[in-house]
Formats: sequence, C-alpha cells, structure tokens
Amino acid sequence: MSTSLPVIPTDVDGVRRALAVAATARVRAHPNPWVGAVLMTTDGQVFTGATGEPGGLHAEAAAVAAAREAGTDVAGATVFVTLEPCVRFEGKRTPSCAETLRDAGVRRVVVAMLDPDERVSGHGVALLREAGVEVVTDVLRTEAEALLRPYVHHRRTGRPWVLLKMGATLDGRTAAPDGTSQWITGPEARADAHQLRAESDAILVGAGTVRLDDPALDVRHVDGPHPRRIVLGHAPEGAKVHPCTEMSGPLTDVLDTLGAEGVVQLLVEGGAAVAGDFHRQGLVDQYVLYLAPALFGGSDARGLFTGEGAPTMAELWRGEMVDHRRVGADLRVDLLAARTQEEIR
Amino acid sequence: MSTSLPVIPTDVDGVRRALAVAATARVRAHPNPWVGAVLMTTDGQVFTGATGEPGGLHAEAAAVAAAREAGTDVAGATVFVTLEPCVRFEGKRTPSCAETLRDAGVRRVVVAMLDPDERVSGHGVALLREAGVEVVTDVLRTEAEALLRPYVHHRRTGRPWVLLKMGATLDGRTAAPDGTSQWITGPEARADAHQLRAESDAILVGAGTVRLDDPALDVRHVDGPHPRRIVLGHAPEGAKVHPCTEMSGPLTDVLDTLGAEGVVQLLVEGGAAVAGDFHRQGLVDQYVLYLAPALFGGSDARGLFTGEGAPTMAELWRGEMVDHRRVGADLRVDLLAARTQEEIR
Ligand SMILES: NC(=O)c1ccc[n+]([C@@H]2O[C@H](COP(=O)([O-])OP(=O)(O)OC[C@H]3O[C@@H](n4cnc5c(N)ncnc54)[C@H](OP(=O)(O)O)[C@@H]3O)[C@@H](O)[C@H]2O)c1
Ligand SMILES: NC(=O)c1ccc[n+]([C@@H]2O[C@H](COP(=O)([O-])OP(=O)(O)OC[C@H]3O[C@@H](n4cnc5c(N)ncnc54)[C@H](OP(=O)(O)O)[C@@H]3O)[C@@H](O)[C@H]2O)c1
Repeated sequence: MSTSLPVIPTDVDGVRRALAVAATARVRAHPNPWVGAVLMTTDGQVFTGATGEPGGLHAEAAAVAAAREAGTDVAGATVFVTLEPCVRFEGKRTPSCAETLRDAGVRRVVVAMLDPDERVSGHGVALLREAGVEVVTDVLRTEAEALLRPYVHHRRTGRPWVLLKMGATLDGRTAAPDGTSQWITGPEARADAHQLRAESDAILVGAGTVRLDDPALDVRHVDGPHPRRIVLGHAPEGAKVHPCTEMSGPLTDVLDTLGAEGVVQLLVEGGAAVAGDFHRQGLVDQYVLYLAPALFGGSDARGLFTGEGAPTMAELWRGEMVDHRRVGADLRVDLLAARTQEEIR
Repeated sequence: MSTSLPVIPTDVDGVRRALAVAATARVRAHPNPWVGAVLMTTDGQVFTGATGEPGGLHAEAAAVAAAREAGTDVAGATVFVTLEPCVRFEGKRTPSCAETLRDAGVRRVVVAMLDPDERVSGHGVALLREAGVEVVTDVLRTEAEALLRPYVHHRRTGRPWVLLKMGATLDGRTAAPDGTSQWITGPEARADAHQLRAESDAILVGAGTVRLDDPALDVRHVDGPHPRRIVLGHAPEGAKVHPCTEMSGPLTDVLDTLGAEGVVQLLVEGGAAVAGDFHRQGLVDQYVLYLAPALFGGSDARGLFTGEGAPTMAELWRGEMVDHRRVGADLRVDLLAARTQEEIR
C-alpha cells in the first residue's frame, strides 16, 4: 500500500507506524508473531506490510511486494519493523525475511525488538549486517514487547500466555444462587469477549462449566480462525463444546503440553473452581473482568473463585490495573500479574 | 471577584460558568444548597459569587457584594444563577436573594432551576417579575439538578440522599476471612472517601463495624465541617466514634428522622449487614465502590453484603454506571439506582 504522507522524519516515527500496522494483524497472524513493517524508498514513498495468515507472507515481504506491485524500486530503502526479521530454520514455510530484505537491496533496517525465539534471536540482525545493511535495534522496544506480550512469554517460558476472563456483577458474583448466569453482562461485553477468543489459540473451561452451561465456545461475533477447545476433565457426549481436547492432571503439565503444541495464548473462561486453581497457583498472566452495573446484594450468589483464598490481608494478591474502560453498559478491567510486568523488562 | 474575560455571549454560557462556581461551594455550603452566581454589568464586567458557610452570604449576594467592593454599579446587570433566588421564610438567617437582586436594580436574571423547596419554589421568580425584572428559567436545568441532586432529593422526599461507600477487591471482597481489612485500597482512595465525608451531613455505620474496626469516622484528609456520626445499634463506651447518635429500628424511620433533622446527604460506610439492609430495601441512591487491583482468590473472604441477595437472574438488581475512574492504584465506580435517575427527570 502506498501513501502520500511525508517522508518519515525519525526512526521512532517509523517504528510507531509499524506498531500500528502490526496491531491490525493479530487475529489473522497468531500463533505466528503479529508484525508490522514500513518501507520508505529513497524518493520518499512509503509502503506497509503486516503478517498474513499462517503460511502467508510475513510483514517485511508484504511491504516489499507492495512496493514492487506499484512498480517502485526498493534498492536503498529504509525498513522499520516491529520484530527482528526472521531467518530460515527447520519447519519454516515462508522465505526468510532477512534474506528478502537483503536481496531487495535495502540499505537500512530499524528493528524495535530482537526475536525472543532462540532459533532467530540475533541471527536476523547478523545476516543483514554481514550483507552490509545498516541495522538499528531497540527502538520503542518496550512498546513492541507489550504488543507481542503473549508471543514473548511463550518463547521465553515455553508456556502459553494465560488470560483469565470472567464476567461478574460489581459485588463480585458470577452466578445466581441457583447457578444461572445468563446474562450478567451485556451484548457489547460478550462481543468484546469473542474478540479475546479470536485472538487466542485455545480456550479452556472446566468440566463443571460444560455440565452446567454447555457452552459452544465459538467465535460468533468476530471474524477470525477458530481457537482449539480444551476441557479440563470430561466433556459429556453431545456437549456443544465438541470437538474438543480433554486434558487432566497438574495445570503446569497442561500448560507445558499446550505450549509445546504451539498455543501462544490460552483463554481460560472458568468456571470458579478452575479459575481459583489457575489463580492460586500463580499461573494467570492477565485477568480480564467484565463488571456489570448490577448487584446480587447478598452473600449467597456465587463468587469468582471457589476454594480457599488468601487467609489474611498480608497474603492478599495484588496486581496492576493496566486498563479500564466502558464496554456497553459494563466495565472492562485488565489486571496483570506483577510477575508478568517483571518478565517484560 | 472581577475577571477580564469577554462578555458572556449566551445564557447557556452564563449558567455554565455559574455551575462551575457552584461546584466549588459544596463542602462549605451544605446542608444549604451549593449555588453559584455570575453577574455581568452593562459595561461587560463579570463578578462571581458562591454560597458561603451556613449563616454566611448566599451566591447572589456574594456576587453583588464583589461588584460593589470593586466600586462597580450593578444597575441594569444580568445575573446567571444555578438555583432560583430565595425569598424570606421563617427561620432564614440571611437577607432574601430575590430582594437583594431587585434592590440592586438588576435588569435580567437567568435561572437554571426552580428551587424544589416548596417554601421558595416559584416565589423567587414571582417576586422578581413583579418588580419588572426579566426572568428566564430552565437553562441547563438537567445539569443544575444533577449538581444539586442530594438537595433536590431531600426537598422532594424529606429523606437524605443515601450514598453507600465501600472498598473492595476486584473479586468483591471487603475483608480477609479473619475480618481484617486494613488496607485494601490505597491512600488516594481513602483521601477521596474523606472528601465524600466532607460533602456529607452525616456518616452512618453499623454497631458491628464499630466493634470490629473502631473507626473514628473523621475527616482527616480534607478541610471542611465535620459531619454527624450515626451508629445503628449501640456504640460501646470508649469507642472512637463518640460523640455519636445511636439510632435503631426500621431504616425508613431512621431516614425520615435524619431528613427532618436537616441531613441532606447521608454517607453509609457499612458494614456488610447494614449495607445489605439498605441495598435490599431500595434505600441507596448512589453507590461508590473503590475497587483495588487485588484478588482474595477464594470464596472464604467476606463479601460486600451479608444476608440473602437476589435469588435468580431475573431478580438481579441493575443500576446505571455514571462514573468510573482511577484513584491512585484503585478504581472508583459510581452507580445510581434507576429510581434515582427517574426522580431527576
Ligand atoms: N461468569 C463467568 O464468567 C463464568 C464463566 C464460566 C463459568 N461460570 C459459572 O461457573 C460455574 C461452573 O464452575 P465450577 O466451579 O462448578 O466448575 P469448573 O471450574 O468449570 O470445573 C471444575 C471441574 O473441572 C474438572 N477439572 C478441573 N481441573 C481439573 C484437572 N486439573 N484435571 C481434571 N479435571 C479437572 C473437574 O471436573 P470433575 O468434577 O468432572 O472431576 C472439576 O470439578 C457455573 O455456574 C457457570 O455458570 C461463570
Ligand atoms: N470494606 C469496607 O468498605 C468496609 C466498611 C465497613 C465495614 N467493613 C467490614 O464490615 C465488617 C462489619 O460488618 P458487619 O456486617 O459485621 O456489621 P455492621 O453491618 O457494621 O453492623 C451490623 C450491626 O449493626 C446493628 N444494627 C444494624 N441495623 C440496625 C438497626 N436497624 N437497628 C439497630 N441496630 C442495628 C446490629 O448490631 P447488634 O449486633 O449490636 O444488634 C447489627 O448486628 C467488618 O469486618 C468491617 O471490616 C468493611
């Protein structure tokens, strides 16, 4: 895509644009990293590219292809990219982006962050530098890592980024005393939650939720690939969650297995027993709570977590509120575990 | 106070400025209505006045006094005021504002809302019109009523505006299983809550909270008059809440009594039993929840309300979220009862 905007004045401006492009690729690209590239030719034309579907073009190749389609010479160009260009390794389906940029005669590459994947990390930059391309790294690195947080976490730990999503009233209740919970939150919050599903590689619920709510766990309100469905325990025959993967045993093993299978983001949707287990074992990276402007008004409705929580004030779990905003009539609140914040630095 | 701003172009502009002035008077003025007045002279000078402490000058008189102090002639002026100027009635300590404006030779008065107090309502406007002053009413009335909501509610119902304030974790818990709760929220939220105290005429807690927490219920972080302390049940000798008023019996009677005693806003600070009673009897007008980015993570910590809440989804109480914002690390959420919203129309 060509634009008539003025030439990009600084490296920070270029990377900022590349980050905006990258954000648009998330639903389509995962479990691959969602990357954005901005190519500026010597005569000041600008082309952008974002990661395609798995098996499709990477961001850098897409930007080069866009320039060529417009009949533009990319020799001598500068490329801003949110993640280090990839190199060839076993199992890769697409041409390596470092080679693509080198072969196109690009003069300068500005990289927001190195790839945390050890098969790539540093090698993409090295390949370019050996070919005489000037490479600048760590421009807006914090922003790039924040955008790619689940991918970074997966490559560093081997486990999926665990996002626990729940809907509740403002008095912290997720279901009436009789177990019914449809609907506490409004249609906008439910659509927003479907967006979380579309961004995830797998969705997990406990067998209790399958028995009680019989959820389909599909992505109804958003276009995008369908995430895998994981049930902890047994999903009865005829349950809407099928086809699904039934898993059991220690949650750390479950996460190791899913991570090895390429699940970059796991969306845990409850119920209260499973949520409590994940939370108390410190396995949740991000909490997304949809809070309805409603109150059950007693102690008999069901809470977010079952089981024994922090017994004293000293043991109260504290996170960091990184976002809060209205979604329809409801409030969405995002919490990060402190550990997660550290991991990112 | 004189300003060098250009002459006020429209009635809406004038009332909007008067509303901003009124907001500054709240803590000082209550239980009197917190009113703002903006006086524009024929030669385009602007003077403002806000309600003083009980027994002090009203807004209109303060604006006229400010103009006179500057040696300015107010004859022919236009005055924008957020509430109908008062008339003399039994028990009034200050000169009537309608008379003050009339006697000053003001030509035009723009009134946001009529006074809901039946001893004044319509009489202030009539007195001015009979004296040949042009009076325009209902300019930004909704905004004016929203600013004076507790006062309007008190004059219309005879009961205080009930504001229920609680601090909780995001999983809706107000104390650890052992009953301790200091501190769930941070210092900024506690200072914000002290502002609510300073704006209230009385603070109420249950005897359980007095026995467990022994709160002083003072206004530590904010300047302002000290609200009355009300304890439902008995406050043991030596409790920090003394001097206080002990009350008991049906909550509707308690509210009627406090309303008759001139309590315009009652701040209910818990505990869970008292909060549940007020809530389930539909007696709360505004809920202010301070939610900490913390999770107890189980079902054994204490909830916002004790007692039996809504038994089914159909009976779930729903309000309207009118505000949400960060206060330090915590989130403040304001809910209004739907009934309250209707009352205001
Ligand atoms: N508001 C919300 O966001 C939300 C979301 C989801 C659900 N809910 C509500 O939550 C309630 C259901 O929650 P729940 O606590 O009853 O059940 P749950 O957490 O969905 O499932 C618990 C069950 O999952 C199985 N399980 C969990 N961990 C396992 C492991 N490591 N290995 C093998 N099996 C494992 C066990 O099944 P077995 O019993 O078969 O051994 C366990 O009893 C419903 O009322 C639902 O409406 C609310
Ligand atoms: N997080 C927060 O915002 C917050 C705020 C305040 C308190 N708290 C917590 O709440 C807990 C205390 O709450 P609680 O539920 O135990 O007690 P509570 O609600 O403070 O007080 C209940 C008691 O008040 C008396 N009472 C209530 N209504 C009455 C009436 N109409 N007439 C006469 N007496 C009446 C009764 O006292 P008798 O038992 O003497 O008859 C009743 O047992 C503590 O753990 C405290 O930390 C939390």
